[in-house]
Amino acid sequence: MTNLLSGEPTVVTAGAELFTDALTAQAAAVTPVAWQPPAGSPEALARVMADPRRTTANATALERMLAAGATLVDVRPASEVVGLAAGQFRHAGPPISWERASGPMRGALMGAAIFEGLASSADEAERLLSGGSAEWAPCHEAGGVGPMAGVVSPSMWVFVLRDEAHDRTSWCSLNEGLGKVLRYGAYGPEVIDRLRWMSAVLGPALQAAVREHGPIDVKGIIAQMVQMGDEGHNRNRAGTLMLLRDLLPAMIDAGVASSDVASVARFVGGNDHFFLNLVMPACKLQTAAASGIPGSTVVTTMARNGTDFGIQVSGTGDQWFTGPANTPQGLFLGSYGPEDANPDIGDSAITETAGIGGFAMASAPAIVRFVGGTVSDALRTSREMYGITTGENAAYALPILDFRGAATGIDVTKVVRSGVLPQINTGMAGRVAGVGQVGAGLVTPPMECFTGALEALGEAAPPLA
Amino acid sequence: MTNLLSGEPTVVTAGAELFTDALTAQAAAVTPVAWQPPAGSPEALARVMADPRRTTANATALERMLAAGATLVDVRPASEVVGLAAGQFRHAGPPISWERASGPMRGALMGAAIFEGLASSADEAERLLSGGSAEWAPCHEAGGVGPMAGVVSPSMWVFVLRDEAHDRTSWCSLNEGLGKVLRYGAYGPEVIDRLRWMSAVLGPALQAAVREHGPIDVKGIIAQMVQMGDEGHNRNRAGTLMLLRDLLPAMIDAGVASSDVASVARFVGGNDHFFLNLVMPACKLQTAAASGIPGSTVVTTMARNGTDFGIQVSGTGDQWFTGPANTPQGLFLGSYGPEDANPDIGDSAITETAGIGGFAMASAPAIVRFVGGTVSDALRTSREMYGITTGENAAYALPILDFRGAATGIDVTKVVRSGVLPQINTGMAGRVAGVGQVGAGLVTPPMECFTGALEALGEAAPPLA
Repeated sequence: MTNLLSGEPTVVTAGAELFTDALTAQAAAVTPVAWQPPAGSPEALARVMADPRRTTANATALERMLAAGATLVDVRPASEVVGLAAGQFRHAGPPISWERASGPMRGALMGAAIFEGLASSADEAERLLSGGSAEWAPCHEAGGVGPMAGVVSPSMWVFVLRDEAHDRTSWCSLNEGLGKVLRYGAYGPEVIDRLRWMSAVLGPALQAAVREHGPIDVKGIIAQMVQMGDEGHNRNRAGTLMLLRDLLPAMIDAGVASSDVASVARFVGGNDHFFLNLVMPACKLQTAAASGIPGSTVVTTMARNGTDFGIQVSGTGDQWFTGPANTPQGLFLGSYGPEDANPDIGDSAITETAGIGGFAMASAPAIVRFVGGTVSDALRTSREMYGITTGENAAYALPILDFRGAATGIDVTKVVRSGVLPQINTGMAGRVAGVGQVGAGLVTPPMECFTGALEALGEAAPPLA
Repeated sequence: MTNLLSGEPTVVTAGAELFTDALTAQAAAVTPVAWQPPAGSPEALARVMADPRRTTANATALERMLAAGATLVDVRPASEVVGLAAGQFRHAGPPISWERASGPMRGALMGAAIFEGLASSADEAERLLSGGSAEWAPCHEAGGVGPMAGVVSPSMWVFVLRDEAHDRTSWCSLNEGLGKVLRYGAYGPEVIDRLRWMSAVLGPALQAAVREHGPIDVKGIIAQMVQMGDEGHNRNRAGTLMLLRDLLPAMIDAGVASSDVASVARFVGGNDHFFLNLVMPACKLQTAAASGIPGSTVVTTMARNGTDFGIQVSGTGDQWFTGPANTPQGLFLGSYGPEDANPDIGDSAITETAGIGGFAMASAPAIVRFVGGTVSDALRTSREMYGITTGENAAYALPILDFRGAATGIDVTKVVRSGVLPQINTGMAGRVAGVGQVGAGLVTPPMECFTGALEALGEAAPPLA
């Protein structure tokens, strides 16, 4: 104590800048620490942190995520796989009404209605959809996922993936490519024509190839692609090429017509994002394996419908915690600019939920040319994500981080305590229905998804003594 | 001066440790600087450094290297492309006699003689080759390149590449895969059978595909692959997949039998190194463009025959400067160990001569799992190579180094002055003929290649005033 009074004081300030400023004005040396109080209810956080089930539940959640497999076992129409009937659709993100739906979500639903022959024009499709004679529900609620608007209708074909470790199936639509495509809200004739070719030629050819080949280890391909400059969300170039390598010989052996093999090879080979629609259901299988563990604070879904961002958490099962979706910041195609971008949309944030995508940017430094930012940002972001996750996935080793496993299992308590939000890489849809893609960029969920989840987790936790 | 005597001295020592040790023993603070005198003849270095042509000549060499293109234009038998007749062979590295040839070089020549029907057993082949009734010369001396032993015989098919900017052609054999293969010195029946299939099926199918497709931009694929975890020497996985993507639809359109398309797709898709044999001639075109510029100290060839390491330098044309090849340090296959490895062999160091391979390891951190070392070594090595090169190749941008262009144009004067040798990634052949590959690792050329070149450059430089 004597020393304290006689020597020069060492002053550390935390949080509010008032103290720092006052000391600095008096020429006193001060070390400010960036700190902010945890987000959300302190009572809920206290209950959740004290929940005796939490540590074990999160360890179990992580263990299941890491044990989950993902093999492509079939390609079939959504009518069969998802059980959709005429006039029924699936879509990305949490539930949404027509009134609250964004432009790209409306555009994709309209295009799907035209594709299914329920309407012959955009106006007619809009009347049908706004009039209450069609129905739609989240892909996630049927165990599947869809990128961007994520609209799936009965005649579209879907990839079928299996996690044998947990006896679970997932599915995802086939990727259409970039630009004017349904999932970005475009519904013009070229969109519908492409969807018809995908159902008539692409789907059946892929089905024949997969059945000839036998199950394809999608998890194994993801492990390779994160060593090849892909992060699995906005870069899927190596993954697409590896899929093509595995499927084409089998497609030929299966007796698919040579001209169809060539057109499928050109379509898939010309679309670096094709494999995204296999990464997504693989990630869904991984996160679904961790769902429904009482007391677990691990996030099992992050998904957006273009209006709301929604998350689901292991300990609270299928309940959605939503907040208004942010608009991504990034790079724009052609003459598009920030005013053209719709808020965040798509189930593709399942990649970050599983530890890749924005979480694995360090392994895909070239991504910054597509989504913006710098290479050092990409490295910093990947490192930062270890602070809000439960563990690491050795199966997805990031070479540039000395083969450290991908940061896996976002923990609601770590997000609210640190204020660090999960980093998502994403495509940007035009906010007006019919426009299509306008760019790609970076975005985070709104904090209220996590504070909402915390509240519910707190209510489900045992009361404090 | 007064200050110098009255204050504490600041002592910096350079080179010899004697001074550092003596001062340290007297408790004086000392800052040692790692320094060594330049390698080779000081007189030669002085003349070369003072050569008034040097700066411009090296700028021209770099400019030509960066301007060189590389397109795959055809696939044809070596008899036609290289003009080989029965009993004539091409091989890797500088010229070598049978007596001085290493095990893998002898094994590959023996296998090629059996493949060509000149001998029906290893013994017979050995008698033929040691008896003086066959002839062989370096691939490089016919404008081509060959990995490892690099042995090419008339019936083997080769890739034909063009640099239209400088109206130059290069060529390289087709890659056989890993393990027991001719280029690693194996010559058993499975090696010969594979070579027969490659000449009967693979070569013609690739020819049909390339002719149907039209020229394939190999330089463009290399630019992509260095963004996809390949360094173009020991990792060519993404490059191989991109080649397959481009060629397969054209192979189908060209009417190649479906069963052959499927077998070619499996062979190429199952060999991550297949594209190496396109990277190498592309690099040869790049460095050949810089050859023969009087006064230039830029290295245009680094090549090894398993006994000697040889380099060629722009200002001295086709003259070889050789030294004994080092043995790579790295990782071994199966139960093989360091005692099984042959000294450095192959023309594949043309990749480092062109700025990729070991020079681009930073972009391929996963390579350390194949050649040994750590990720930070890989980053450090790539950065260090900028110190011994003339410029950077923006076409081959390395994302993790903030898209810095590959270090290009090794300068003999920078190597001898710094003592830093070019870093080469390489495969390791078994030292006994017939064994095949035993591992992969890292190696450098012997310094005497560079001091020898310096001597010749000095003789060709104007005398000092």
